[in-house]
Amino acid sequence: MNRKEIDERVPDAVIGRLPIYYRILGNMIESGQLRTSSSELAANMGMTASVVRQDLGYFGGFGQKGYGYGVKALRERIGEILGIGEAYGAVIIGAGTLGAFLASSDFFADGGVFLRGIFDHDPEMIGKTICGHVVKDTCELSSFVGENRVEIAVLALPGKDAAAVSEWLVCLGVRGIWNFSSAPIAATEGVAIRNIHPADSLMEICFKLREEDDILRRQRRERTGNEGS
Amino acid sequence: MNRKEIDERVPDAVIGRLPIYYRILGNMIESGQLRTSSSELAANMGMTASVVRQDLGYFGGFGQKGYGYGVKALRERIGEILGIGEAYGAVIIGAGTLGAFLASSDFFADGGVFLRGIFDHDPEMIGKTICGHVVKDTCELSSFVGENRVEIAVLALPGKDAAAVSEWLVCLGVRGIWNFSSAPIAATEGVAIRNIHPADSLMEICFKLREEDDILRRQRRERTGNEGS
Repeated sequence: MNRKEIDERVPDAVIGRLPIYYRILGNMIESGQLRTSSSELAANMGMTASVVRQDLGYFGGFGQKGYGYGVKALRERIGEILGIGEAYGAVIIGAGTLGAFLASSDFFADGGVFLRGIFDHDPEMIGKTICGHVVKDTCELSSFVGENRVEIAVLALPGKDAAAVSEWLVCLGVRGIWNFSSAPIAATEGVAIRNIHPADSLMEICFKLREEDDILRRQRRERTGNEGS
Repeated sequence: MNRKEIDERVPDAVIGRLPIYYRILGNMIESGQLRTSSSELAANMGMTASVVRQDLGYFGGFGQKGYGYGVKALRERIGEILGIGEAYGAVIIGAGTLGAFLASSDFFADGGVFLRGIFDHDPEMIGKTICGHVVKDTCELSSFVGENRVEIAVLALPGKDAAAVSEWLVCLGVRGIWNFSSAPIAATEGVAIRNIHPADSLMEICFKLREEDDILRRQRRERTGNEGS
């Protein structure tokens, strides 16, 4: 399958599931599994087998009817589709605890992205070494991006600085923004932006818990009411 | 507005946007802004004003026609809806770089969640102090959860252990799983689960970049072809 033949307009929901397939297949390889099926993948994703078949159908003829999928081959193909191995370059802006955690994570290696540098404007951070990277002054960003292949900027800085820094990076030619700051970066023509706010999902959990607590309280009230009548 | 009167079935997409409103309003408060409008909120979220009005409409009469919203009051109300201030308790399982980063983050405080403890099964980690928490042995989890109010477990452990640990925690009475491991936790009746895989969104960025590169290459080929004809 040649990825160049892929329909240009794969829905975002499908794109969003590709890394999940990629990760689940990786877990299967780790546990020594050789083959899988659309039903097994579906069970792992909390979806139906037909959605899995439809998803993979976007990218041409995966698998053989009745034989399922070879785990390793399917993972490699999804990796190709995702652009893993294209070796895009990234810089992290912000060398605080978040930037340091990201630098130490497997996220870049797993995604086939090359971390080229970490930048900060705080004199106390500049010059420190984080996971083999000497933190550079943000003043050097222009020349650094000019001289190195940097497609992706990772924003690990305060929300108030995010929009300005992002605009500047896009002017320098950066085409992907992975934003961990508290302020979401608005959609920009020709720039792939993903705003990551882990705390949002913690709040969603709290919402669900509180919703459940409210139902329990109501049921208890209703029971008490019925007993009283 | 009494949250108890809220319709029980708020769509997940709306729930997912509440923390974003909450965060954006927090940024507005920080910059001293007093009032906002559905259009301004919409611009910040990359949505239309009518979606914003519809979202907030789920929770009763926010704002006054023509006057917009008081930033502080709206944020407080959304916080109430989200269950912030309910003071749910959480434990982190896994004291590696991820667990340590999460413990040091503002995620818990911002969500009104109380971090009650950090656990690990690695003898080298047990006893270490991370952000004021002495790392405890996972063997103590049963008694700890029994004696303390712990509604939420944060999984910062290897994917291979995630499912077993999650099942065990649910047996102990934990009702929310915030899972940062590489293996997604399947939906479980009565348990609020959020699987967080930051690397997925980095892969989505790579996909978008590669998609764009492919289009550019194709256009270049076509141009060359046209010139040749």
